[in-house]
Amino acid sequence: MDYDELIQLFKEGSYRALSRAISIVENKEPGFRKIIAEISRTGGNGYIIGVTGPPGSGKSTLVNELAWGYRSIGKRVGIIAVDPSSPFTGGAFLGDRVRMQRIATDKGIYIRSMASRGHLGGLSAAARNVSRLLDAFGFEIIIMETVGVGQSEVDIVKAADTTIIVSVPGLGDDIQANKAGLMEIGNIFVINKADLTGVERVEMELDKIIKMAYHSASWKPPIIKTVASRGEGITELIEAISKHERYLKDEGLFSQKRRGRIEEELVTLISDHLFEHFSPKIEDKVSLKALTDKIINHELDLYSAAEAVVESILKEKDKGGVKIET
Amino acid sequence: MDYDELIQLFKEGSYRALSRAISIVENKEPGFRKIIAEISRTGGNGYIIGVTGPPGSGKSTLVNELAWGYRSIGKRVGIIAVDPSSPFTGGAFLGDRVRMQRIATDKGIYIRSMASRGHLGGLSAAARNVSRLLDAFGFEIIIMETVGVGQSEVDIVKAADTTIIVSVPGLGDDIQANKAGLMEIGNIFVINKADLTGVERVEMELDKIIKMAYHSASWKPPIIKTVASRGEGITELIEAISKHERYLKDEGLFSQKRRGRIEEELVTLISDHLFEHFSPKIEDKVSLKALTDKIINHELDLYSAAEAVVESILKEKDKGGVKIET
Repeated sequence: MDYDELIQLFKEGSYRALSRAISIVENKEPGFRKIIAEISRTGGNGYIIGVTGPPGSGKSTLVNELAWGYRSIGKRVGIIAVDPSSPFTGGAFLGDRVRMQRIATDKGIYIRSMASRGHLGGLSAAARNVSRLLDAFGFEIIIMETVGVGQSEVDIVKAADTTIIVSVPGLGDDIQANKAGLMEIGNIFVINKADLTGVERVEMELDKIIKMAYHSASWKPPIIKTVASRGEGITELIEAISKHERYLKDEGLFSQKRRGRIEEELVTLISDHLFEHFSPKIEDKVSLKALTDKIINHELDLYSAAEAVVESILKEKDKGGVKIET
Repeated sequence: MDYDELIQLFKEGSYRALSRAISIVENKEPGFRKIIAEISRTGGNGYIIGVTGPPGSGKSTLVNELAWGYRSIGKRVGIIAVDPSSPFTGGAFLGDRVRMQRIATDKGIYIRSMASRGHLGGLSAAARNVSRLLDAFGFEIIIMETVGVGQSEVDIVKAADTTIIVSVPGLGDDIQANKAGLMEIGNIFVINKADLTGVERVEMELDKIIKMAYHSASWKPPIIKTVASRGEGITELIEAISKHERYLKDEGLFSQKRRGRIEEELVTLISDHLFEHFSPKIEDKVSLKALTDKIINHELDLYSAAEAVVESILKEKDKGGVKIET
């Protein structure tokens, strides 16, 4: 389908058009800028929920149940599952395919896997663009799910309106440690698989962390116990999310958070565009090879080399030639 | 201690100076550029080994044993352990402190934890700078250890001369899936805890992946079985690493890989420096707030906004004023 047709079908609510648009935006294929410009004319109404936690915490099941919970109160739900997947599997694991089969029968839920790697301009930017598409498509709830390890992955859930950190009893210390870096970004803590032994210990630990990290915060993250595989605790979780949404809106933090997010993205894009503007000049006129030789031979350090390149580009910009002594 | 004293002590082999220098470089404190310039005059002799695998695979024990193995053949070993740690714990977990106590008695092994988050210019760049410091300090083996999830974390081990992917029998599918994205970057596969049941299954899976992903590669990754907690398989692992090193050097790939790494870093730094050069102009003269308003009100999309800013900066550069219609 051509571009105008794609946009038209997207607006008419075609899931095929949505999937195609996401692929274009995710891979920055030709036309991606046009699509972003087009969808930026609408949207902004979807509520974004970030869900993260260690492998084995049952995140996917929890997210599925959360989606069904919202569905039962009439909301349309879009899910972005960021997986550290392989190029071999094309971004979808067996588990995901099973998830999609079950969910595909309901037109009110859409699930999309994103690979963790290989995104020009960064994973976080790509995920936000996909979230923007889901928003423009009309999903009222957008859930972004990531494994809670890794800087880019955490950046994704941090950008949500409400961020949920999932813990689970009985994982080894090595695994629980992965949560540590997440603790300061959680708005709601979930202990999933709360029917397992050891739930009290996890609760005590979380309690301690909340007291420590949030002692001066006006929002104290609640701890919600769930057994996602049996749908237990989901209603309570949805209630906690609503409460957090009301808190954000009452305090004026909702739009403030979103403003901050957009400003941050804008600054990153400006940086990218600047580099794009200058990079042909770098490639054509500066001998990166010669500079690399100098660095390898200990005649120059990386930072001084980079500085020299930038100075030359800026100085010689309008004179049509950049020359670096090599 | 002042800067000259620090450099002097570093050169004399003071571990205290090394630790201080790493902190300065890691946090980009004042003087970090000077330190990088200074240490770039030497080094380049350390062999860099990347070790990654899922939580619970016993990576830390394996890395410790590997370090002792190298120590027993007279090599000095520096370890960089990248952990998705918390600001609360200051980057070191209990597990790390235990490791450090045991290792601190041997002056030939140095271990440093790095937090996964909060690095200006990226985790991967920070880790490479720390590795450069260890190299200049005289460590012949540098081991970079990360949890094998997350883009930045994988970038770190990818930059090693030899990359080791650790698997383990009996982890759930959810956890094993995390390995998938790593498979194409492994030079050596280790099955740790090889005394557990299920080791044959993991071996078969790895075999399949190697056949698929490396069928046209001239280096076929060997599979080494270890029980790190008992020191079993470590000699075989060191032998496999040596073999890979010889392969890289015989094929001319060793210096090629290192060149590529430096060129890549150079391009990233050029981009950073360009942005640094222009960012005061952006902050002073462009109303990011007004642009953000337009984006929120659906009058402008992010990409067009960024483009407009860049165009204005470049056009008005020498005229002393940037104005964007808002």
